[in-house]
Amino acid sequence: MFKDIFPLFKDPVAVEMVITHIVHRINSTLDKKVDVIVGLDARGFLFGPLIAMRLGAAFAPVRKAGKLPGATIQAAYEKEYGTDIFEMQEDAIKPGQNVVIIDDLIATGGSAAGAEKLVQKLGGSVLEFIFIIELEFLKGKDALSAPIYSLVKA
Amino acid sequence: MFKDIFPLFKDPVAVEMVITHIVHRINSTLDKKVDVIVGLDARGFLFGPLIAMRLGAAFAPVRKAGKLPGATIQAAYEKEYGTDIFEMQEDAIKPGQNVVIIDDLIATGGSAAGAEKLVQKLGGSVLEFIFIIELEFLKGKDALSAPIYSLVKA
Repeated sequence: MFKDIFPLFKDPVAVEMVITHIVHRINSTLDKKVDVIVGLDARGFLFGPLIAMRLGAAFAPVRKAGKLPGATIQAAYEKEYGTDIFEMQEDAIKPGQNVVIIDDLIATGGSAAGAEKLVQKLGGSVLEFIFIIELEFLKGKDALSAPIYSLVKA
Repeated sequence: MFKDIFPLFKDPVAVEMVITHIVHRINSTLDKKVDVIVGLDARGFLFGPLIAMRLGAAFAPVRKAGKLPGATIQAAYEKEYGTDIFEMQEDAIKPGQNVVIIDDLIATGGSAAGAEKLVQKLGGSVLEFIFIIELEFLKGKDALSAPIYSLVKA
């Protein structure tokens, strides 16, 4: 079961609606100002900067080890088979900043949990995860400390 | 010499200025309407959807072989050492559509040339390449048929 997010981007009006929905969700339900949107390489990069710019927030990437320049911090995360290493730039988040983590899809939640670990290591507070698609039967949200919001449950 | 684009995204006002500049450049100098913005995995994903949404254009990704679902087409491209394979989804561009290709940086132009080949294979017309940073001394633009525009020359 492969869920493909790219067809959404054929229609700029649909993209605009999704982004507006997410920004409205953030502004109307979170009681703190979001300082940083964190997006996972690569499909989180499609949504993260759009949301961050609308919120007036920073955008910071999570990438696999070796893909980010400068000083980084690392966290292991669970993949379907075995583990892998995620990195963030050390100065991506300042202690006490409020963070929302975005990705296109949550399955088992392994990569999202890795991103959450990184934000916590940097002293950030994860207010919420936002996913376009949630594969509910895989119970990915059980892997995460922060609450999640998903636009489509499949 | 590693040029890091991610610090730009710490400042949403700076991102907005860059995107506005690019959109203004496209609207004021290209004499055809842009149908599709093509962005290269992963850093082209940071800029592509922002520009596409502002233009009312589609966004389509170029990724390494095996990362895009559904029917795809392939093209080889030159890397620093050896070659690699890029893919696009077969239905990403319709014949005759006008395309602008975006990436964060042009060095030798190998990956941009690979993206251009894919767009041409699908029958699209590349109006222009846009890069945030151009490493001019590497003469990457000589590898490309379409003209290029870069915001910063280094």
